[in-house]
Amino acid sequence: MTTVSIIGGSGYGGGELLRLLLSHPAVEVKQVTSRAHLGEYVYQVHPNLRKRTQLKFSDPVALEPVDVLFLAQPHGQAQHHIDGYAKLAEKIIDLSADFRLKDAADYQRWYGEPHAAPEWLNKFVYGLPELHRAVIASANYVSGVGCNATASNLALLPLVKADLIDLASPIIIEVKVGSSEGGAEGNAGSHHPERASVIRTFSAFGHRHTAEVIQEMGVSNVSLTMTSVDLVRGVLATAHATVKPGVTTKDLWKAYRAAAKENPFVRIVKERRGIYRVPEPKILAGSNYADLGFDLDESNGHVVSMCAIDNLMKGAAGSAVQCMNLMLGLDETTGLEFMGLHPI
Amino acid sequence: MTTVSIIGGSGYGGGELLRLLLSHPAVEVKQVTSRAHLGEYVYQVHPNLRKRTQLKFSDPVALEPVDVLFLAQPHGQAQHHIDGYAKLAEKIIDLSADFRLKDAADYQRWYGEPHAAPEWLNKFVYGLPELHRAVIASANYVSGVGCNATASNLALLPLVKADLIDLASPIIIEVKVGSSEGGAEGNAGSHHPERASVIRTFSAFGHRHTAEVIQEMGVSNVSLTMTSVDLVRGVLATAHATVKPGVTTKDLWKAYRAAAKENPFVRIVKERRGIYRVPEPKILAGSNYADLGFDLDESNGHVVSMCAIDNLMKGAAGSAVQCMNLMLGLDETTGLEFMGLHPI
Amino acid sequence: MTTVSIIGGSGYGGGELLRLLLSHPAVEVKQVTSRAHLGEYVYQVHPNLRKRTQLKFSDPVALEPVDVLFLAQPHGQAQHHIDGYAKLAEKIIDLSADFRLKDAADYQRWYGEPHAAPEWLNKFVYGLPELHRAVIASANYVSGVGCNATASNLALLPLVKADLIDLASPIIIEVKVGSSEGGAEGNAGSHHPERASVIRTFSAFGHRHTAEVIQEMGVSNVSLTMTSVDLVRGVLATAHATVKPGVTTKDLWKAYRAAAKENPFVRIVKERRGIYRVPEPKILAGSNYADLGFDLDESNGHVVSMCAIDNLMKGAAGSAVQCMNLMLGLDETTGLEFMGLHPI
Amino acid sequence: MTTVSIIGGSGYGGGELLRLLLSHPAVEVKQVTSRAHLGEYVYQVHPNLRKRTQLKFSDPVALEPVDVLFLAQPHGQAQHHIDGYAKLAEKIIDLSADFRLKDAADYQRWYGEPHAAPEWLNKFVYGLPELHRAVIASANYVSGVGCNATASNLALLPLVKADLIDLASPIIIEVKVGSSEGGAEGNAGSHHPERASVIRTFSAFGHRHTAEVIQEMGVSNVSLTMTSVDLVRGVLATAHATVKPGVTTKDLWKAYRAAAKENPFVRIVKERRGIYRVPEPKILAGSNYADLGFDLDESNGHVVSMCAIDNLMKGAAGSAVQCMNLMLGLDETTGLEFMGLHPI
Repeated sequence: MTTVSIIGGSGYGGGELLRLLLSHPAVEVKQVTSRAHLGEYVYQVHPNLRKRTQLKFSDPVALEPVDVLFLAQPHGQAQHHIDGYAKLAEKIIDLSADFRLKDAADYQRWYGEPHAAPEWLNKFVYGLPELHRAVIASANYVSGVGCNATASNLALLPLVKADLIDLASPIIIEVKVGSSEGGAEGNAGSHHPERASVIRTFSAFGHRHTAEVIQEMGVSNVSLTMTSVDLVRGVLATAHATVKPGVTTKDLWKAYRAAAKENPFVRIVKERRGIYRVPEPKILAGSNYADLGFDLDESNGHVVSMCAIDNLMKGAAGSAVQCMNLMLGLDETTGLEFMGLHPI
Repeated sequence: MTTVSIIGGSGYGGGELLRLLLSHPAVEVKQVTSRAHLGEYVYQVHPNLRKRTQLKFSDPVALEPVDVLFLAQPHGQAQHHIDGYAKLAEKIIDLSADFRLKDAADYQRWYGEPHAAPEWLNKFVYGLPELHRAVIASANYVSGVGCNATASNLALLPLVKADLIDLASPIIIEVKVGSSEGGAEGNAGSHHPERASVIRTFSAFGHRHTAEVIQEMGVSNVSLTMTSVDLVRGVLATAHATVKPGVTTKDLWKAYRAAAKENPFVRIVKERRGIYRVPEPKILAGSNYADLGFDLDESNGHVVSMCAIDNLMKGAAGSAVQCMNLMLGLDETTGLEFMGLHPI
Repeated sequence: MTTVSIIGGSGYGGGELLRLLLSHPAVEVKQVTSRAHLGEYVYQVHPNLRKRTQLKFSDPVALEPVDVLFLAQPHGQAQHHIDGYAKLAEKIIDLSADFRLKDAADYQRWYGEPHAAPEWLNKFVYGLPELHRAVIASANYVSGVGCNATASNLALLPLVKADLIDLASPIIIEVKVGSSEGGAEGNAGSHHPERASVIRTFSAFGHRHTAEVIQEMGVSNVSLTMTSVDLVRGVLATAHATVKPGVTTKDLWKAYRAAAKENPFVRIVKERRGIYRVPEPKILAGSNYADLGFDLDESNGHVVSMCAIDNLMKGAAGSAVQCMNLMLGLDETTGLEFMGLHPI
Repeated sequence: MTTVSIIGGSGYGGGELLRLLLSHPAVEVKQVTSRAHLGEYVYQVHPNLRKRTQLKFSDPVALEPVDVLFLAQPHGQAQHHIDGYAKLAEKIIDLSADFRLKDAADYQRWYGEPHAAPEWLNKFVYGLPELHRAVIASANYVSGVGCNATASNLALLPLVKADLIDLASPIIIEVKVGSSEGGAEGNAGSHHPERASVIRTFSAFGHRHTAEVIQEMGVSNVSLTMTSVDLVRGVLATAHATVKPGVTTKDLWKAYRAAAKENPFVRIVKERRGIYRVPEPKILAGSNYADLGFDLDESNGHVVSMCAIDNLMKGAAGSAVQCMNLMLGLDETTGLEFMGLHPI
């Protein structure tokens, strides 16, 4: 058994990671840390784990060496401790934003302060298997992904990979998100009477995840608009772009089918009947799927590409476990078989 | 115009009061206080009031005399300042729990500490017009009502008033409540990802509002079970009691019809067809109605009596304005005409 | 008192109209028709109206003459009966889509069949007071507005009126909507287990309301993407456009302030602090306000303009009553004073 | 591999069963029937199954023999075809209400019509493993369970088994339920604008599942009150009973601990801190756990016992698969390992 530990296990990403790893057939969870909940049973914070583990939250200073170390702390922390962590484990997967960007100047621009360990930026691989499967398989350091960036990147992936869009035209991505994206710590706006039933645009443009779309998709004229809606888990990214002259719906089908064929967690949802004709995040809760759909207005080349994911799974813990599987030489889908629920 | 001010205007009760008073034809709002939001426009906290008032939150120490002073602070504060408030206004209506109970020993038992101004307890009238209309009309000091107590009391009112129930048998009241009942301050459990979709029983018995049911209904063998559900505004109290031998459904109809006839804000909802056959809080948002329904199992005398209200209206600010109307000699329904919305 | 009747009163638009007219100080409701609910009390369908009216649904064939006749039937019906209706009332306000478009060819293109009464198209004024206040005031026939079109048109209004946007660049409007927009008749997709928690894009482009945006805003390169979210009442339209070279945030403020000044139901929501910094539909339930906000990326001229409304109010019944007020020479806001609720 | 087929696979119970059986390590799904969706891919109705199976809905008349046949049709159908089904499979598990009651007279009383195959009633075992584990293990015909009955029975189980309650006192059970309980077919009341945010009591007493509580718990003075709340999956049953004189909280702990020890899917939730102190259905979506909690008012013997389940899992398909495991000699938990999600 591969031994793993999680630093920062009381947050939503850490909890989801723990759920996945506890039922993963090839790993054994050694420690889960939380300063705020030190000594409590993990099921007191993550009630779904009751009767499944007697693990208690331990102190991060008491970490023992393991094969794979997961970092699931708030942004801005891992970069200060990465040298120490690297002594504890040969392989590290960091779910935070600390090692996603390649360029320290980009980090400073989007995160507002200098990076504390810029020499580590190029040691990390951006952990989206659909983009970097082979490199991840041989990497020791893998970064997690931004959930909104992942939905946006996967919405664009078939179009960019098949070189179908006009990169000179602006790409507008409207991202609708659930409340778990904000993390386990509440704030005035997450108080239920204020947060229920919202359609609340919290960023018209300039969201930090934009940097990951620019970096990974090689696009520059791109904008993300972020809107919260009433849902706990889930992201739907709707990308508006312009296809190159002559590109047809048939070309798009070919590109999307290729993406679904190459990637076990990518599905195409484009039906003419039934209730679920397009990608929808609600049925993805707990699953690692990224559902893609598209529609092309052939009269003007306007393509609408959609990607739905569970932000805590494909947008965080699920992709992280998928990366771990690749790094360990396991089947990519191991431990990620849950199909999601209908109805929900 | 009658002049009024509100102490504690940034909470949900205070905000609802402000909404009602701003559109009330017979009053003028002079000041609304909030220490936390001092100097801010009230519409920055209560966004529905934008373009309707340019009032700013003022300092409670700078209060000027008015005709009617509303106290909408958290529980436990008014009792420490009541002597000072009484110098500012001839009439006071307190929405908090401070002056609801008549007996200082009861207060200590249910609230866990001695009352700071026990000499004031008997100067206040319990502010539920359906119980104390005439006394309120001639009172200077009126206490607000507990929202759960109000739903429970009105569910029992027709039965108790017509002397139809066996008071020796236990009365079980199951109360289901929305999230606004917890007030404007968030906590770990009100964070949207944790609070959405709940059916969460936060008190199996022993809830403080039980004291108001015992006091006002003259019952002793009564228990309230409190369960939060996914809704912002609304309370449904379902009272299970046993009728006296021989009591029939016809007797119940008579008692409930009398309650509806005597009280402009009491309605009976008991239909055999359609979607809305029983009292439901969702259609009451913003309205001052208390919708009552009942069902009697004639085989064993088990009566199920339901009352639905908007906790911020009939359960707080609406009843307070209704009391003010009585105290000022106005029609009881003045400024409380909003019907509620369908659908919502 | 002005006498009014409503044809088609059991739907959501008709019910909301009825609520508004029952509390309107200058009108008296004579008849409300519904074939499906003939003879039932209107409060059996619209439970908020209980104890407020004893009106029953009547037969449309038994309509008597009135001063103002409201048509609130499903689309495609009014055009077949308009000659008869015109004999019953001097003034007609139709909430359906039948008389919104000026050009019969446009109607056929967007609605898929020829118009049954094309000679009436030019007799109707498009009923959005913010666009056609003066003409409405002297009109006898006024058409209702599409709810999504209204949110989109008002999002664009300040920009178009002040001539600030580059009309050659595409305008992408993402519209997020609640479930009441689909009307009172259910379908497979509106069944609660399937409809709850959705982020469901039901039209990537080509929605019928696009025709009203093209006609009323004079834009051609415009696309509406429609997405359902978990909310009953409310629409948020987010328009992405490109400003003309040199246009600044200051220019935008000027244009939006002018719109808010000219129109009693237009508000600007653009705050730097607090929970409600941008337009949000949830607090507008039951109110006739249209809340506008905007953000300009000065680096590339990308402007994001938002408009939130209650689809049943400003997007349907509220605008209709506002038009009636203008047609009757009343203050535009009469009977539309409800502020909306916070929290909700 | 054990071969299984499902009759009635397009409903919610059938879909959930299919999800479980597709990932069950010891079975192979041969056929899934649906007349309404004949020939469609099962993933077109149950979108979570996309990319997991290419099964199409088949005709029930074309069923082939299998080892285990699951019946997941609406109530009232299986009893008419049971002789034929018995020729197709040695083992049958019926999720409907047709074979739950032992006494044909009871069936007629609660379901309003005579049973069509009364000779089969005693061949079926009531399929709740927590009550009949050993008998199920050797049975060929097992009935499913009512979801509300299951939550109620498991809430009472520790109390009844340890003989702690006074059966002469009335037992009031308040059951709060989600919308999936109503099945996949919509109705006027399940239309999202009408069903969202409800607290809607649809049965004050006399619900059919009461019969299963009477039969299985051996209680007679019991009443179920059913209330719908805003949630898709989940039931919380809150049972109010009176303990025998002298029974203490310690006695209750002992009884509940025994239940949790004997039953792998029973957990006790009774915490003094944290957000999740009592049983809550929301975290159980997709899991087969029954979470139990209790509170005793030692001053009067009033015990409040709670049970939370996922109505489609422990209340239907999960218990059915648990029974199948027992019938096949497998570990009871096989294929039922999903832990549920947090947050959700």
